[in-house]
Amino acid sequence: MLQNFKITIAYDGTNYHGFQKQQGTGLKTIQEVLEDCLSHLSGEKIKIIGAGRTDAGVHALNQVINFTVSNWKIPAGRIVPALNGLLPDDIVALTAAEMPIQFHARFGAKAKTYVYTVYNHPLPSPFWRLYSYFVPRPLDVAACVEAANFLEGQHDFASFMAMANGTQPKNTVRTLYRAKVTQKDKFIYFIFQADGFLYRMVRLMSGTLLEVGKKKLAPQEIINILNSCDRTLAGPTVPAHGLCLVKVEY
Amino acid sequence: MLQNFKITIAYDGTNYHGFQKQQGTGLKTIQEVLEDCLSHLSGEKIKIIGAGRTDAGVHALNQVINFTVSNWKIPAGRIVPALNGLLPDDIVALTAAEMPIQFHARFGAKAKTYVYTVYNHPLPSPFWRLYSYFVPRPLDVAACVEAANFLEGQHDFASFMAMANGTQPKNTVRTLYRAKVTQKDKFIYFIFQADGFLYRMVRLMSGTLLEVGKKKLAPQEIINILNSCDRTLAGPTVPAHGLCLVKVEY
Repeated sequence: MLQNFKITIAYDGTNYHGFQKQQGTGLKTIQEVLEDCLSHLSGEKIKIIGAGRTDAGVHALNQVINFTVSNWKIPAGRIVPALNGLLPDDIVALTAAEMPIQFHARFGAKAKTYVYTVYNHPLPSPFWRLYSYFVPRPLDVAACVEAANFLEGQHDFASFMAMANGTQPKNTVRTLYRAKVTQKDKFIYFIFQADGFLYRMVRLMSGTLLEVGKKKLAPQEIINILNSCDRTLAGPTVPAHGLCLVKVEY
Repeated sequence: MLQNFKITIAYDGTNYHGFQKQQGTGLKTIQEVLEDCLSHLSGEKIKIIGAGRTDAGVHALNQVINFTVSNWKIPAGRIVPALNGLLPDDIVALTAAEMPIQFHARFGAKAKTYVYTVYNHPLPSPFWRLYSYFVPRPLDVAACVEAANFLEGQHDFASFMAMANGTQPKNTVRTLYRAKVTQKDKFIYFIFQADGFLYRMVRLMSGTLLEVGKKKLAPQEIINILNSCDRTLAGPTVPAHGLCLVKVEY
């Protein structure tokens, strides 16, 4: 009997070349490691679908995957410990549940939330170096907060999209439900919730908001950048290791 | 003119074989990396003294070192950026100051504070795996708090000392100014401040308090363990990666 399982996972992306399997490259990816472990548990070749195809170095607090399997023997309640017994310690299974056969982790996602973390202090931290982007100069956080407001809503986000190799989406309109900037101690968090994200969109929006924080851009200029649909007007792509997929909603 | 500099540093100990130089072993240590960078800056061979000789995998939020140098050209206010420009990103210089020539980072330390961090949750965290000890089962934190009180004060801590290779101190009496256990979210912190620590003393005390938390030992048994001066009665040595040197006082 065909079954469909949904599993939520957390991972430290430092040692991986992103989520997605890269056939024939020999590069280690999250998908590959999970498929190997699940295939080992099931005895058949498992292919998983991930909600967000995170880039190399990007982390996840709550990534969602699903897979269908025809001859599964492990009860849903035992999947998490069984999987964690096989996974390396930088990938952790959090929950597992059987779903209706039509559940699709990627196409079924109604909203995804990413957080980009900046470590804003004159000196770097050896402990946060892999999980945040170090910015030593003081930032105007109030200006970032103001600028982020202009990003919220339904827009053509073509200015905030990098070229993926070859493939470019026809439709670059997305709905950004939430674009918030908050500060806590040495950390500044850029929080984005949307129905979907274009390639490198979060890192480009974060990089652009950082330009506002550095007073190189006025908050209102975000409107012009959005309207221009011109990638060259947006700020730089900030490094992957500051980014984390924190939530997927269905 | 001979000068003496005090430098405070933070480091992620994950990739090092401890603080202390291990001549001829080819193993990378914190001391070796710092000496190489300081020697490069000064043009003469620098030998440093560290306040705490942390073991392999142990971290530091505020380690203190000092070194004497006869022909130093960098003003004290420029040492931190100069050093951080050379250091790998898992070691960070925090402060630098010139001291009286007799200042000695190790012998001059009046108190050191170590914190042992336990990640107490049914599932491990990929992000805290290198900086905390994962204990999935629920712990009786109130019992740990009670037991820690019995450790405070001046005692012979021979029960809480592992054998260092060959060298054993004649005097195993130490004064533990503070032994506290606190809980915050998924973390339990074992905090120890003392005039000095025996080899692996913090990890043995933490391991013993964890036995109390697991109800394998009653809190009052700490008194018997202390009085026995018998290492075999104490709990196991918990792993190095949960330990961090957080403060050195002079």
